[in-house]
Amino acid sequence: MKVGVLLSGCGVYDGSEIHEATLSLLALDHLGVEVQCIAPDIEQHHVINHLTGAEIPEKRNVLIESARIARGKIQALNTVNSDDLDALLLAGGFGAAKNLSTWAFAGADSDILPDVKHLILTMVHAKKPIAALCIAPTVLAKALQGSDIHPQLTVGTTTAPSPYDITAINAGLNSIGAQTIMTTVDGIVIDKTNKIITSPCYMMEASIAQVFVGIEKTCTALIDLVRESTTP
Amino acid sequence: MKVGVLLSGCGVYDGSEIHEATLSLLALDHLGVEVQCIAPDIEQHHVINHLTGAEIPEKRNVLIESARIARGKIQALNTVNSDDLDALLLAGGFGAAKNLSTWAFAGADSDILPDVKHLILTMVHAKKPIAALCIAPTVLAKALQGSDIHPQLTVGTTTAPSPYDITAINAGLNSIGAQTIMTTVDGIVIDKTNKIITSPCYMMEASIAQVFVGIEKTCTALIDLVRESTTP
Repeated sequence: MKVGVLLSGCGVYDGSEIHEATLSLLALDHLGVEVQCIAPDIEQHHVINHLTGAEIPEKRNVLIESARIARGKIQALNTVNSDDLDALLLAGGFGAAKNLSTWAFAGADSDILPDVKHLILTMVHAKKPIAALCIAPTVLAKALQGSDIHPQLTVGTTTAPSPYDITAINAGLNSIGAQTIMTTVDGIVIDKTNKIITSPCYMMEASIAQVFVGIEKTCTALIDLVRESTTP
Repeated sequence: MKVGVLLSGCGVYDGSEIHEATLSLLALDHLGVEVQCIAPDIEQHHVINHLTGAEIPEKRNVLIESARIARGKIQALNTVNSDDLDALLLAGGFGAAKNLSTWAFAGADSDILPDVKHLILTMVHAKKPIAALCIAPTVLAKALQGSDIHPQLTVGTTTAPSPYDITAINAGLNSIGAQTIMTTVDGIVIDKTNKIITSPCYMMEASIAQVFVGIEKTCTALIDLVRESTTP
């Protein structure tokens, strides 16, 4: 069984959230599945100094920076054949909303990278499960916008502290056809019909151990869905 | 209890090994201790394209890149007061041997960053425990070279596959006064006398789950040593 892990750079503010990506690789390894890291071979939207939060006048490539998390073992998105994958996981971090889509800047009116949309739609149409962490459910919603699929997903809850405006993100997601469900950091949402699993991770104020709880549940549910569909 | 986690950039080939650093933060959080990420505010030795292994003509700062792993919460090494720390952990990755020391280029004849040497010696003299992962034990050995302390440590074993020349690294470590012990990826070496714990991690060919086994043992032993010394 092979799971694609879609990355979007290396660092929470301009790429993949490093803890979420790394802990997904750990949880998937614990589950005994093969992992294929994937990232688009495109320029990052921008580069953020993670110490100050300021933009740096540099250019970095999403595939090359994602390779830091993947220890060099990563495949360019435009060379991925979804036939080779049994499931897909999208790590979070602003890279999902800056490089894979432009949600961070335009919300529900954002664009999505065509190769990302294509991979997600191909997986969904093949009834292969997809997991998305943190802000990455917005990428799924953008990919499915305008289709007859209305995924149930979560980007967190307003009942616990979050650095982000969960109400506004939910409104944006609902406006393009997704159904949002409030969930705490240790929870997941499983959309059994569409085989989509989501967990809030660092959308909430959370410790790394709390984030790992959600990621372990997410990965377990993802692999369970693969096994259910492949069991005769 | 507060544990300093010394980083050296962000990415195995020119900075901290991301999995080792992240999994150390997870293991320490599981143990209920507070963590303070630390890195020197210096230019990286060089920048490596992690997709190809080639050097890139760019300049990056070790503190700023380490902040990606720390999600912005990191302290410059030259502002750290070791009185505030109960223990120290050095993550691995080539950054330890390129930015904290020059072991990657000069082996036993390498230099060590004075602030790194100072922090390590201060911790050792205060009888506070130190852990070092992967190649980072070479940094400890350089810091203690010429002292009357001859730490027992490991950078792996020749009895299992490794991408590196463990024999040569051991010879270098022995030549400057350290005592090397062969250990597999799931093992650790505890030098009780000097309160130093080491584990090979990605010095060996290993899966992320195997690396986590060594890191969990390392962090548990580190905190046990703190508790032993603070129990009346």
